[in-house]
Amino acid sequence: MMFSRIGYQRLPTKESFNEGREESEDRRDSIISRRRPFGLVFILCAASLFCLFLIAPKTAHLFNITGNNDYGLEECAAPISLIAKPPAPINLWASLTIPEITEIQKWLEAPERQLNLTRGPVSRISDNVVFLIETYYPPKAEALAYLAGGSAPDKYAHVTIQHGGLEIPTVRNYLVGPLPVGKRTLIRPLTEIYHESEIPFNARGSINPLEFQQVKFITPELSDAMQELFGVTARGTENDTLILSVSGPFSFDGTSRKMWYSFLKNVAGSWLLPINFWQYVDVSGTDPSLWKVLKVVYNHQVFGSTEEFLDAFRNGTLIRSPDALITQDKDYSWASRKRVGKPRDLDQLPGPRSVSFAGLRFRVDRETQYISWMGWGMYLGFDRDMGLSLWDITLQGERIIYQLAPQEAIAQYAGNDPLQASTAWLDRHFGMGSSVENLLPGYDCPHEAVYLPATTYSAMGTIVRDKAICVFEQDTGRPVTRHFGYMDGEFGAVKGYMLTVRTISVVGNYDYEFDYMFHIDGTMEVRVSASGYLQGGYWESFQKGYDGKIRERSMGNLHDHVINYKVDLDISGIENSLLETTTAQEAVSQPWFEDDEWGSTVIQQKITKRILETEDNALLKYPTNFQGHYSIINQNQTNAWGMPRGYAIHGGYSPVHNTVNGARRLLNNANWARYNLAVSLQKDTEIASSSLWNQNLPGKPTVDFHKFFDGENITQEDLVVWINVGTHHLPHAEDSPNTKTTVALSSFLLTPLNYFDSDISLDSANAILLSAPSKAGDSWNFDDYDVNQGYTCIPQIPAPFEYPPPKVYDADGQLNEAVSLEDARKLAEMYHRMKVEL
Amino acid sequence: MMFSRIGYQRLPTKESFNEGREESEDRRDSIISRRRPFGLVFILCAASLFCLFLIAPKTAHLFNITGNNDYGLEECAAPISLIAKPPAPINLWASLTIPEITEIQKWLEAPERQLNLTRGPVSRISDNVVFLIETYYPPKAEALAYLAGGSAPDKYAHVTIQHGGLEIPTVRNYLVGPLPVGKRTLIRPLTEIYHESEIPFNARGSINPLEFQQVKFITPELSDAMQELFGVTARGTENDTLILSVSGPFSFDGTSRKMWYSFLKNVAGSWLLPINFWQYVDVSGTDPSLWKVLKVVYNHQVFGSTEEFLDAFRNGTLIRSPDALITQDKDYSWASRKRVGKPRDLDQLPGPRSVSFAGLRFRVDRETQYISWMGWGMYLGFDRDMGLSLWDITLQGERIIYQLAPQEAIAQYAGNDPLQASTAWLDRHFGMGSSVENLLPGYDCPHEAVYLPATTYSAMGTIVRDKAICVFEQDTGRPVTRHFGYMDGEFGAVKGYMLTVRTISVVGNYDYEFDYMFHIDGTMEVRVSASGYLQGGYWESFQKGYDGKIRERSMGNLHDHVINYKVDLDISGIENSLLETTTAQEAVSQPWFEDDEWGSTVIQQKITKRILETEDNALLKYPTNFQGHYSIINQNQTNAWGMPRGYAIHGGYSPVHNTVNGARRLLNNANWARYNLAVSLQKDTEIASSSLWNQNLPGKPTVDFHKFFDGENITQEDLVVWINVGTHHLPHAEDSPNTKTTVALSSFLLTPLNYFDSDISLDSANAILLSAPSKAGDSWNFDDYDVNQGYTCIPQIPAPFEYPPPKVYDADGQLNEAVSLEDARKLAEMYHRMKVEL
Repeated sequence: MMFSRIGYQRLPTKESFNEGREESEDRRDSIISRRRPFGLVFILCAASLFCLFLIAPKTAHLFNITGNNDYGLEECAAPISLIAKPPAPINLWASLTIPEITEIQKWLEAPERQLNLTRGPVSRISDNVVFLIETYYPPKAEALAYLAGGSAPDKYAHVTIQHGGLEIPTVRNYLVGPLPVGKRTLIRPLTEIYHESEIPFNARGSINPLEFQQVKFITPELSDAMQELFGVTARGTENDTLILSVSGPFSFDGTSRKMWYSFLKNVAGSWLLPINFWQYVDVSGTDPSLWKVLKVVYNHQVFGSTEEFLDAFRNGTLIRSPDALITQDKDYSWASRKRVGKPRDLDQLPGPRSVSFAGLRFRVDRETQYISWMGWGMYLGFDRDMGLSLWDITLQGERIIYQLAPQEAIAQYAGNDPLQASTAWLDRHFGMGSSVENLLPGYDCPHEAVYLPATTYSAMGTIVRDKAICVFEQDTGRPVTRHFGYMDGEFGAVKGYMLTVRTISVVGNYDYEFDYMFHIDGTMEVRVSASGYLQGGYWESFQKGYDGKIRERSMGNLHDHVINYKVDLDISGIENSLLETTTAQEAVSQPWFEDDEWGSTVIQQKITKRILETEDNALLKYPTNFQGHYSIINQNQTNAWGMPRGYAIHGGYSPVHNTVNGARRLLNNANWARYNLAVSLQKDTEIASSSLWNQNLPGKPTVDFHKFFDGENITQEDLVVWINVGTHHLPHAEDSPNTKTTVALSSFLLTPLNYFDSDISLDSANAILLSAPSKAGDSWNFDDYDVNQGYTCIPQIPAPFEYPPPKVYDADGQLNEAVSLEDARKLAEMYHRMKVEL
Repeated sequence: MMFSRIGYQRLPTKESFNEGREESEDRRDSIISRRRPFGLVFILCAASLFCLFLIAPKTAHLFNITGNNDYGLEECAAPISLIAKPPAPINLWASLTIPEITEIQKWLEAPERQLNLTRGPVSRISDNVVFLIETYYPPKAEALAYLAGGSAPDKYAHVTIQHGGLEIPTVRNYLVGPLPVGKRTLIRPLTEIYHESEIPFNARGSINPLEFQQVKFITPELSDAMQELFGVTARGTENDTLILSVSGPFSFDGTSRKMWYSFLKNVAGSWLLPINFWQYVDVSGTDPSLWKVLKVVYNHQVFGSTEEFLDAFRNGTLIRSPDALITQDKDYSWASRKRVGKPRDLDQLPGPRSVSFAGLRFRVDRETQYISWMGWGMYLGFDRDMGLSLWDITLQGERIIYQLAPQEAIAQYAGNDPLQASTAWLDRHFGMGSSVENLLPGYDCPHEAVYLPATTYSAMGTIVRDKAICVFEQDTGRPVTRHFGYMDGEFGAVKGYMLTVRTISVVGNYDYEFDYMFHIDGTMEVRVSASGYLQGGYWESFQKGYDGKIRERSMGNLHDHVINYKVDLDISGIENSLLETTTAQEAVSQPWFEDDEWGSTVIQQKITKRILETEDNALLKYPTNFQGHYSIINQNQTNAWGMPRGYAIHGGYSPVHNTVNGARRLLNNANWARYNLAVSLQKDTEIASSSLWNQNLPGKPTVDFHKFFDGENITQEDLVVWINVGTHHLPHAEDSPNTKTTVALSSFLLTPLNYFDSDISLDSANAILLSAPSKAGDSWNFDDYDVNQGYTCIPQIPAPFEYPPPKVYDADGQLNEAVSLEDARKLAEMYHRMKVEL
């Protein structure tokens, strides 16, 4: 046993530091004053000799009862966050509650609305169904007025109804309010935020997964043929060895709804196990009796119908794939996440765990979903389409960002098969918010994380997930700043900490981890990491150039991910400009080098700054070799040294844009992906760069990003930055079974640019300053600002792991306790993975 | 008080997991079996009623003695690492020990060597002085043979002597060996690793800081003038309010040694406080009596000598700067690191701290400086020029990297003044290894870090720093992989951990933090973060385009940092090839799209792979938009799926190369900085991309990187990758007082590319796998592989902070206890900050 250092220690803080703190609800005060000499108990106890005899040999080293220390260890506070104080008591961007949703649902269903609604679980496609009831964000001016102390804006809900029951079926959006429902409450079409007046029904989102089981594309004859060809089949039984997945978009402009069916092995990791067989189906309109199979593709042969294919199969003209049976009867466990391999050295021990011994330092107000930490503050919002968003992000009381919210996530594939070559996902369609699953405590987020819930409406049942979001502080493991120097005041370090707000959205095969990381110097990093399964392909030599071969017959197909964020920066007010800062080489003569052997011409670099004056200039790529950057500045507000206050945008990991431009399947519905970033005028009518219908409307997008850029002046105006992160995914064996966040990640940084007069992290007391000793050979003197970094107490044991299912509420607001896993699964997997039900 | 969860907990591991572990020195076994119910002691103790009375009220919640739990909390193991087992008992790349150095020094000094040596501390420039005695790395083939079980190669020392005493003074390198010194030991010139046979004496490194105090460039008359013009002066007294710094390079090709003197306020953070005054001095040769001032520059006026300047000063023709006195009598505390500002909310509490409750999981063999963790293993090396290097980096017993070592760090400045416009530092010159200072425990590295020493030779005294390197494991705070899915085996997460090996080099104003981060999936990130002080300029409007204004009269000057690494990858053996993988858009017809409304032509991306066959093809930049990557592969070794095994190189943060090319001050001495990376044939004669003399030989570099690239074939050969990280530093107010690691960082990633058959991180037991419950509404079942993530014990209190000075040994190997701080400071600061000593 090593020499034990448990015993005397300094308090984690001293009284003088308490001045700047809030009094009333600061539990830390009581923790600190509660400091009772635990060791003392032992010394008293030790008066009993028997007791001493028992304790001494084993615990003397623990509590130093024989030493001269005054303090033992007390129990640490539970990792419960203190209550944050939001700047205003209402979170204008909070999700609607179950009672609020229920109330609106009933109001919509009332006969006087004349909407002729059917509820999701019992609906057919030809019914009118409420697809969405959600908070509609107030106009920015009204929200700012409220935050500045004015009255709260009226509350409205965004309602989407799929009018399958109309003669020309369509999807319509409505604004319902003011809320709560009352005499003043009205419903009106919500069209001003969209570029198309009509949303074609064929572009609609999924409501009832049953809709695809109403037709019989997989006939018993086809099943027989598949069994012979592949050794696996789908007959709509419990023993089915195949499941289905589809391609997207389903439509170019809404005139039809078609998709490629791909067949996959029905095992864990089915995404990686497609067989070599596709059906192209037409599921347009609301009458399933008209739906049909348009094509069948097998072993690079194309057939005009299932019958044509079966004819060839029967009459021997089908060229059979020599490989098709190869993977039959194989062990597919490699596609599961079950642990394999020899344990690594010491991996039987749990790894290091972060503990806030003196208590959590961030605050959370669960009521408003407001978070504060080290001078930062923010409200959380959450919606069906994209999940978590951050609002009114302030630092030291000043708003830096009004809204920070992901907008869309595209994944565009390539391959030599019908599905991969035609697929470009826009995952907003599937609901990246409703696809946020509860986090795995201790695995997805550190043990000390605080979890927050999220509510997402669905026509099949509104889901409340208690652990949709996690918030935690981390030691970054390295100083924010440090220097070694001999002058008094030069040598020291400020510890690096960051607060992370996280949510993970699981859209079919992929898990998107959204991280918002706040640093004490005012820098933010916005990062997406991807894990989960590849959208796998069937490996054959024809696929060369699009691979990723990861097994004998499995491959990952080449694809790009690009994710767009809306960052509504407000730098020292809302009137801001876009500054382009570039550097380039120059050759310049300077008088002091004349006649010198170095030559009078200096080759060096120089900065050029340019205000980009209109939106037309503001569709941007990072400069070559990252020579310079873009920033949002306030030309009329300077720091103490006369420099305009600003925030700069830096690419972080994988600062890329989309590779492929002009593909018909992504013609105009994700034009933001062509750039690294873009800046447009803030407008309450341009609230999002995409919509859930954009997925299926590349030729006629509901939101057309390029239409935001109509030449308007953007100098000293309220600006919005649209920034992308992304990865070019060239799959390889190590993407199997799941993609790794160590390399599948992308980020951008927002960092103060003359926003402050100097580095604000220097105000941190979690820091040290050293000064040279007076005598050579002595240790250096130091000041740790009376924050005892080594403060130790007896930690609480983390709660045992548990993973309950989310709560689902029906349209009456009643908890639905009987939601089967199968139903939950169908809702979660949607088109991504369907069982055949004949 | 919250409900206490201290009490029963599962063991951190179960017995079955111990199978794959090493038996003998695994202290963890004893820790685990030592698990005695500590609570039991209390229960026995409690038999004494008096004792129970005392303990019960205060400790019942701690130890649950009244509950039915079987286990209390025991004391955690001290954070001491277990002993690693190096693959071979000798670290071929270890620094020489003090006795070894001393022995060689004496052998060199022996009369029969006829070297006529003078020891550093008493030397003049015109003496012959040993500049360096260091390990010379064995030829790679010999080292590999040893690692494969052969005999150890002969040991040699690299000796550098500055022959100031020769008629034509010069610098020469020698090889001395075999070691230890004996009859076989010889000395011979070491020239084969350099491209120039002679190293001009004017390009030499600094030995004795006194050399600059031998001349009187600052005359009393000049001091008087400076006092009048600036209100500050340097008279060689203790009250001097100015100090000096210089520009570099000192020479173009070694024919002379000249530098610009800049004068700075003698306060903390002097780097940020230059005054508007420069002298250009000629200090060529070995006779200080010939040294002279060539130019004086004041307020954009150039004078041919100090006298000319003084004449103008006296006769009134000098155009005085209206600003020069502005900063007189000012408070310069802003340039210090002393804490300022209002404390932030809860910052009086120490932040979260990482604790390995079940013990550290990495192993260290201090004897050989060998580290292992989770299947990774590596030897550490350390040298004067660049500090820490890693050797024989293996994963699961296979070597991936033979050598990973920084090579050079350039900083090229721009400005409208003589110093900034002429400065391009190559910090290898100053000894980035000897500039590695002891780390600040708890601030530079987490509390649990294990520290390792480094020894660097200096003619003024060899320095041993006990905490030169730190090693620690961290929870990355997010899973390496995860997925949510309903199929059995799909839902789970593998925790992300990484091992970091760190050293911080402080070269004058800048602190370079070198991090090597190892992940459990086989990915490595190599990262440099910068902190410390800017090389500040005097702000005036002429400087526009080169600023960074950070105060009334202070600015940070525009500059680039580029740092070169040597990465000698060995992928499945030493015979490797360089693969270029790029992606581009294609338009292709596919049969299944014929007649489809989408059109028969698919626009998508496609991969092109190309082996780059000669060194001439291998000077590389990252592709535009990072579409593709470079990798080192073994064309003859495939994974199970027939893909060549490889490691890919990805840019991480700030993946940049140098902006300015062709400047005379950096003409040919850092050509590696023009690219993102380059690949050349491994040769024992091309061991480094730079040399310490390159700094002062831009026109005639001792190592000319471009000469490595002479058209040799690089397919299935032993290859070395030279990779850059860097930052374009456009300074701003928040760089004051110190640059922040949150944004001043750059990295690259090395990641397995079909090196394995699948993701190896799946073998981690720090993971969880969930399966759906049989009953709706129940919590999910889970398997945590019996690793209790919540395992908690009573942590050791970290050692109190202490920062002793490093140990300095004289040439006789004696500990020099009397090294004054002033002397230590002079050695550390060298030319970067000099006091005037008249």
